[in-house]
Amino acid sequence: MFVKEGIIASPGIAIAKAFVYEKSVVEVNQNKVNDAQRELERFHCALKESHKQIETIRLKAVSEFGDEEGAIFEAHAMVLEDPEFTDGVEAEINDNHLSADYAVKIVTDRFCAIFDQMDDPYFSARALDIKDVGMRVLQNILGIVQADLSRLDEDVIIIADDLTPSDTAQMDKKRVKGFVTNIGSRTSHTAIIARSLEIPAVLGLYDITKTVKTGDIVVVDGLEGKVTVNPNAEQTENFKIEKKKYQEYRKELEELKDFEAITLDGHKVELVGNIGETNDIDGVIKNGGVGIGLFRTEFLYMNSDTMPGEEKQLAAYRSALEAFPNGPVIIRTLDIGGDKKLPYLSMDDEANPFLGLRAIRLCFKEVELFKIQLRAILRASVYGNAYIMFPMISSITEVRQAKAILSECMKELDEVNIPYDKKIKIGVMIEIPSAAIAADIIAKEVDFFSIGTNDLCQYTLAVDRMNQDVAYLYDPFNPAILRLVRLVTNVSNNQTNCFTGMCGEMAGDPMAAILLLGLGLDEFSMSAFSIPKIKKIIRSVRYEDAKAIAQTALNLETGEEVTNYILAEMKKLEIDI
Amino acid sequence: MFVKEGIIASPGIAIAKAFVYEKSVVEVNQNKVNDAQRELERFHCALKESHKQIETIRLKAVSEFGDEEGAIFEAHAMVLEDPEFTDGVEAEINDNHLSADYAVKIVTDRFCAIFDQMDDPYFSARALDIKDVGMRVLQNILGIVQADLSRLDEDVIIIADDLTPSDTAQMDKKRVKGFVTNIGSRTSHTAIIARSLEIPAVLGLYDITKTVKTGDIVVVDGLEGKVTVNPNAEQTENFKIEKKKYQEYRKELEELKDFEAITLDGHKVELVGNIGETNDIDGVIKNGGVGIGLFRTEFLYMNSDTMPGEEKQLAAYRSALEAFPNGPVIIRTLDIGGDKKLPYLSMDDEANPFLGLRAIRLCFKEVELFKIQLRAILRASVYGNAYIMFPMISSITEVRQAKAILSECMKELDEVNIPYDKKIKIGVMIEIPSAAIAADIIAKEVDFFSIGTNDLCQYTLAVDRMNQDVAYLYDPFNPAILRLVRLVTNVSNNQTNCFTGMCGEMAGDPMAAILLLGLGLDEFSMSAFSIPKIKKIIRSVRYEDAKAIAQTALNLETGEEVTNYILAEMKKLEIDI
Repeated sequence: MFVKEGIIASPGIAIAKAFVYEKSVVEVNQNKVNDAQRELERFHCALKESHKQIETIRLKAVSEFGDEEGAIFEAHAMVLEDPEFTDGVEAEINDNHLSADYAVKIVTDRFCAIFDQMDDPYFSARALDIKDVGMRVLQNILGIVQADLSRLDEDVIIIADDLTPSDTAQMDKKRVKGFVTNIGSRTSHTAIIARSLEIPAVLGLYDITKTVKTGDIVVVDGLEGKVTVNPNAEQTENFKIEKKKYQEYRKELEELKDFEAITLDGHKVELVGNIGETNDIDGVIKNGGVGIGLFRTEFLYMNSDTMPGEEKQLAAYRSALEAFPNGPVIIRTLDIGGDKKLPYLSMDDEANPFLGLRAIRLCFKEVELFKIQLRAILRASVYGNAYIMFPMISSITEVRQAKAILSECMKELDEVNIPYDKKIKIGVMIEIPSAAIAADIIAKEVDFFSIGTNDLCQYTLAVDRMNQDVAYLYDPFNPAILRLVRLVTNVSNNQTNCFTGMCGEMAGDPMAAILLLGLGLDEFSMSAFSIPKIKKIIRSVRYEDAKAIAQTALNLETGEEVTNYILAEMKKLEIDI
Repeated sequence: MFVKEGIIASPGIAIAKAFVYEKSVVEVNQNKVNDAQRELERFHCALKESHKQIETIRLKAVSEFGDEEGAIFEAHAMVLEDPEFTDGVEAEINDNHLSADYAVKIVTDRFCAIFDQMDDPYFSARALDIKDVGMRVLQNILGIVQADLSRLDEDVIIIADDLTPSDTAQMDKKRVKGFVTNIGSRTSHTAIIARSLEIPAVLGLYDITKTVKTGDIVVVDGLEGKVTVNPNAEQTENFKIEKKKYQEYRKELEELKDFEAITLDGHKVELVGNIGETNDIDGVIKNGGVGIGLFRTEFLYMNSDTMPGEEKQLAAYRSALEAFPNGPVIIRTLDIGGDKKLPYLSMDDEANPFLGLRAIRLCFKEVELFKIQLRAILRASVYGNAYIMFPMISSITEVRQAKAILSECMKELDEVNIPYDKKIKIGVMIEIPSAAIAADIIAKEVDFFSIGTNDLCQYTLAVDRMNQDVAYLYDPFNPAILRLVRLVTNVSNNQTNCFTGMCGEMAGDPMAAILLLGLGLDEFSMSAFSIPKIKKIIRSVRYEDAKAIAQTALNLETGEEVTNYILAEMKKLEIDI
């Protein structure tokens, strides 16, 4: 028996036999080859075969995981047709006399390197796609048949280096009970698939594929982030009990779906979802979210090769609005810049992009782009309760500037008699310290605030949390951050017709729920998955107690003291995280 | 008659004939040259001649402008000896068959391009040095004699594209009454020299060398930033009156030198200087500063090819302490990182260096480097009133961490019986929003705060002020910034044994003086030159009035409203800016 600790990527407990999924080692022929014609044929045969395979997998992915997963394989098919890829390989074969396999490897690596350098998750995903496709073509050239996850005889825990979309799509999902990998993070493909399948996953165990053998009994504990290999009888019994408890807990959460987020003493708050595309709407509904607290519209732009037009945007916003006839749908205008770029919009390199031309600042520079989006939101507003939210606001001047442009759009629609919600609610992200400090001033121009804790924390502490050297300083529980939150809720709590939401990661953190409730937050917006858990916590506490806890936390000295204090209070109140 | 507007680089008014100083156009021979030996000889002759010239100029610069200006020409001489320069030129001649002149031009341009890319003023200065030296060598190769500024027959205003140290050093300073240039900024060499000579300068006029002819009568108005060419009799008369008024004003300021910075109703504050090196001390004394509010120790590191040792640092700190036997000398520990790098300390490239490994964060990573500096400060502390200040503090945790390392250093000195001030005062820069917001918490561990408005403003508004696309958002008069200042002074004003200073640019801004006084600032630290002006303003106002003005400003909506309000109040109180 031994235990390994890793990154918690998906919760739950699973006990089953290990299936060690090791990919064949691919060796390419690095010698110069004279018969270029033959190599080109090998390459094109492999391309054709890859096309067929990808189409088969795509259909399976759509039927088992939905359109979004299917879209990955559409992207794979597009790589096969991308002239930069095919011409690149052909040039290596023709000009440099490489073998087809070596040419594919070199071109794939070159592409991956370019995308890997970019910080953005969108481009990291592109790199992964290209790697996956490149490997498939290579295997087809070399006639290598990959170990098969689609026909499993018994329940298994997959033990792998990492899992690609190709691996997970063809996988027999009825038999797979958990994932354990050498590499990966909470945001890697393996993690996302595990959460959507609701199976536990513990990732980043470094060399687990070397220490576990197929057939070993493995317990994946996605609650504690532990992997136990060949447990003894007593341990197995304990895990079974824990597993049952967790299942009961999940059931309880599911039963909360249609209940309100209300405290024991009757204080109600609103739990809503963060979405990036219309595919995410179902998850919010399924988990009992009453609306959308953050529609990240930049994904409409990033998942596109050209600027998305007014009609395409209108359709997306309308879908979200129609999905929540009673709830709010808060549409944030384009938040691009910083670490997010658009392939079709040239942006200068900046010494400090997080302090540069981002979000509303960019929209003020590219007014036409901004107006297309505003018109699309306005036109969609007749289909539900649309709210417009401006990101990266630093002062009331910018709010007025944005509202002036919105008024122009309204006039343009009036002129052609297109209807829109004339009383559409307008709000701002509170993610720059000055906006929190001057919330009382900004309140004169808006109907709501939504606190973006990730950026607010970065600026308030002057820390780029992606920078490994200083990420240790990033802490949303730092008393300075709590005080800024309090400044904002103080304004909205003392004013009718104004509310404060939060759409940063903190809003979905069970550790923070009581604190934020007590600080006077009206609306919590988070990933769909987190909604039931936060609802359960809110329904387990008295508002009066939460307020007292928040008051104490505001005067503690450090983020560490705050988290320790909250943990202790939650324990006293017998509330699980 | 015509008037042009430019950048105010040095105040005052001058009326004199124009001397248009245009540099000879240098044309190099770009043809391949076969006789490499001859080109090498031309190059070496020019090197020798340049050496001689630079030494002559250096002596003149030292005697007329002091050691600091002389040091520029030491740097020039070093460029001539730098093997990267000389070997570079020789390689171009030998390997690429270039003419000596073309080789010098290419190598100079290459060097300049490297340094120009860097944001830091230190490296921009290096680029300028190299350009200056390269031009000198080139002229010596080609036998070009530069127009001569050292023998002027009458008083003149120099009209030039830009002025280099070589130009200004050899200049007949008794005859030169003002500068007007096509390019340049408040921090360019031309501006610095103008201020040290106390002559007016208006820069950045784009094509003034083309529109003014030698012999034209020119009025440089460094108060309004205007250049009037060939004024009529009435205008001339008016300028003479303005000039006289300004001279009287300067005289009045000089007479304030030994007076206290005290309001009409008896509230005293402290005016102190910001220095980067010991050469700056004299200026602070001359302008009536009572101590040093900010010793920027990074210049000790940046002006050096290797890490400055404990003894070298001790000597520098001791000079400053001995210069102010009664006043405070606040020594800020190393503030490197961000846009400031050290050639001998490898630092990773960062996506957002301003949110990265800077200042105290770097010192925690490079503890040995930090301890050398702390020991030097401690050892110097017996020579005066030394204060230690830690930069980039985001929370009390970092203050405690820094103090723990300081305690270690004290113990090490105790062990070898080296004396130091055991009650040395310890403070922090308030330049990260969280530090201002949590000033009450941090106060538990410190004796003083010093607000760094430049960075505080950058982080609070999430604006890199070097980024032209967003610099318009940078505004220290933004109410959010004023509120943060107020948060900090609230803490120190209500506590004995704690004071708040300010060492950012705002502290020396006449527009801000009444506001900051009214916000409760105890100490203003600024460039020596600004001290008399700020002192005059403080001595012209009642503290009670300043407090009322500040209170109103805190509740205005925008930075623009604040500045307009302040201007109006100063006018009412009849206080000049």
